[in-house]
Amino acid sequence: MADLNHQSKRRVLVVGAGGVGTMASVALERSGMACVTAVLRSNYERVMEHGFDIESVDHGRLSGWRPTNVVNKVPTASMESPFDYVVVTMKTIPEIMNIAEIIAPSVTPNHTTIVLLQNGIYIEPPIIDAFPTNAVLSGPSYIGAHEKNGHVIHDDPDRYHLGMFHNERLDKRYERAKLEDFASAYNGSHIEHAMIVDDIIHYRWRKALWNGIFNTMCAITQLDNAAIRRSGGEYSLIRPGMVEMAAIAAADGYDLGENIVDKMVDATPIELSFRPSMLVDVDKGNPVEVEVILGNALRVARKKGVQTPILDNTYRFLKLIQTRLLVARGHIEQPKNIPTTDLI
Amino acid sequence: MADLNHQSKRRVLVVGAGGVGTMASVALERSGMACVTAVLRSNYERVMEHGFDIESVDHGRLSGWRPTNVVNKVPTASMESPFDYVVVTMKTIPEIMNIAEIIAPSVTPNHTTIVLLQNGIYIEPPIIDAFPTNAVLSGPSYIGAHEKNGHVIHDDPDRYHLGMFHNERLDKRYERAKLEDFASAYNGSHIEHAMIVDDIIHYRWRKALWNGIFNTMCAITQLDNAAIRRSGGEYSLIRPGMVEMAAIAAADGYDLGENIVDKMVDATPIELSFRPSMLVDVDKGNPVEVEVILGNALRVARKKGVQTPILDNTYRFLKLIQTRLLVARGHIEQPKNIPTTDLI
Repeated sequence: MADLNHQSKRRVLVVGAGGVGTMASVALERSGMACVTAVLRSNYERVMEHGFDIESVDHGRLSGWRPTNVVNKVPTASMESPFDYVVVTMKTIPEIMNIAEIIAPSVTPNHTTIVLLQNGIYIEPPIIDAFPTNAVLSGPSYIGAHEKNGHVIHDDPDRYHLGMFHNERLDKRYERAKLEDFASAYNGSHIEHAMIVDDIIHYRWRKALWNGIFNTMCAITQLDNAAIRRSGGEYSLIRPGMVEMAAIAAADGYDLGENIVDKMVDATPIELSFRPSMLVDVDKGNPVEVEVILGNALRVARKKGVQTPILDNTYRFLKLIQTRLLVARGHIEQPKNIPTTDLI
Repeated sequence: MADLNHQSKRRVLVVGAGGVGTMASVALERSGMACVTAVLRSNYERVMEHGFDIESVDHGRLSGWRPTNVVNKVPTASMESPFDYVVVTMKTIPEIMNIAEIIAPSVTPNHTTIVLLQNGIYIEPPIIDAFPTNAVLSGPSYIGAHEKNGHVIHDDPDRYHLGMFHNERLDKRYERAKLEDFASAYNGSHIEHAMIVDDIIHYRWRKALWNGIFNTMCAITQLDNAAIRRSGGEYSLIRPGMVEMAAIAAADGYDLGENIVDKMVDATPIELSFRPSMLVDVDKGNPVEVEVILGNALRVARKKGVQTPILDNTYRFLKLIQTRLLVARGHIEQPKNIPTTDLI
């Protein structure tokens, strides 16, 4: 394995240049410790010509900002200058895409560390399966940042927990070194964006408790976070759903604490109405991350024998809405034959 | 009690002049055995001026058609000429209306028979409570008829089961006489619209098995009957939901037969896509009949101790969507305080 040269800049590929990816690129470039190649799609032409216009709660106003390199597809890494890190910030919609396949050309075996700044629980194992010699870091983002055609409004600080997701074929000291190195580069502009934690799965379950419930239930009902609570949803669905999610986490070995449901509900004040990201996706007709946010949790529930009647039905309704969204966008065709098995 | 004079025309008030109410008025008037007073609301001016324009699979084309009387509010019955029948064809939205209060001025104690041509299960007891000396007939409509601003497209025959819903204070022979008399008037134009049955509750449960599942689940997912089956919903939600509904009916003393779920699903062919009426309501932003179609069934389930996890959650999601619809239409205000009890 190549030794890390702490004097030279890390070569970082950022795949997915929405709000999360753009602000990751900014943090990494501004630290002076990394040079970023950003893979853009719909905004490629715009950013090539004008750069990004960014209004950031962390970094102030950046006009015409560009990372070191901008490309419009995932590049094939060269032997001489492989990517040190591939940072994935795309939405994960396994019904229509395979993240491992997408990033494969840029991942150099025994060298590249893959950093998943994405939503979901247990999104790491398929990546480790696909890249058995590469370290995987995992960081569920809490950023509030929205990109549209090169314009980014970043209004909620970019803070996240970052941990290694242990690959049994690798030495934990190697993974830990990568974790600390990536965090140092991400935090190098003197903002502590990435907070290193020992067990990232704990934090992913904690986030699943909110995402798997508020996001999914607001998406189904098309009510915002405050309206769903005020309309009776807090006690009919939200809290019971969170209790089920906490039980899955507990069966998986993660005790989220006795008052976790109260804490999560209290952290979602009714005085401040907002549309959770999955509801925004439904509003826009975009597919939703139902599999990584809820499906993966329910697969753990089935394996551990946890009963989750509310989340099961939440998942079933959301999967049907997902099919509607995927068909409407032309991602899939309306199924011709009737599936005869349950979906979980 | 006034004797029924079979030689004179029955005086009938029809409350609710959408598709169902208009076609009921047509059948009753064309028989020559009834004179109808129709209560119109949004279409009152239009119909007063131009009458209804009707294209009916049962009655052909009727241009500028009017019932004997058209009024724009429920009239107060006079002592001299009370209504023999008050036919209710309105949607039932108990969150914002009380059917008994609405029809009360037109109901003469000991005389008027109330005919409920409405959706739902156990919609009759509140009417009997409000009018303890009046007979109640019950007929869940299967008509396909849509009214818009005086124009009616009636493309699915007006056939329904009609029965008495026994009021313990009344003699069953009296109720039966009213049932037969009303059916004879409704069927007098030589089309057998109303089919007299001995136990209407059986037929209402049968209809609830379809309405409580396809209507509610298509409304939540915004998928039509065929798409919800093809997208996996048939086995994840539709069939299990129907099994629960059949179990409620069975606990209530109504065995719907061993193959009822297969029969109901088969009666909803995937070759013919249509949007169930509750989904059409959601499409239009109209409130939905969640309480009488699903809520009442679940209240029976609770009383009889039947477990209905899928229908419970269906109800909870639909109640939240209902709140959204009611708030958006200005029928209710967004609740200020968070309800702390479950909704069933």
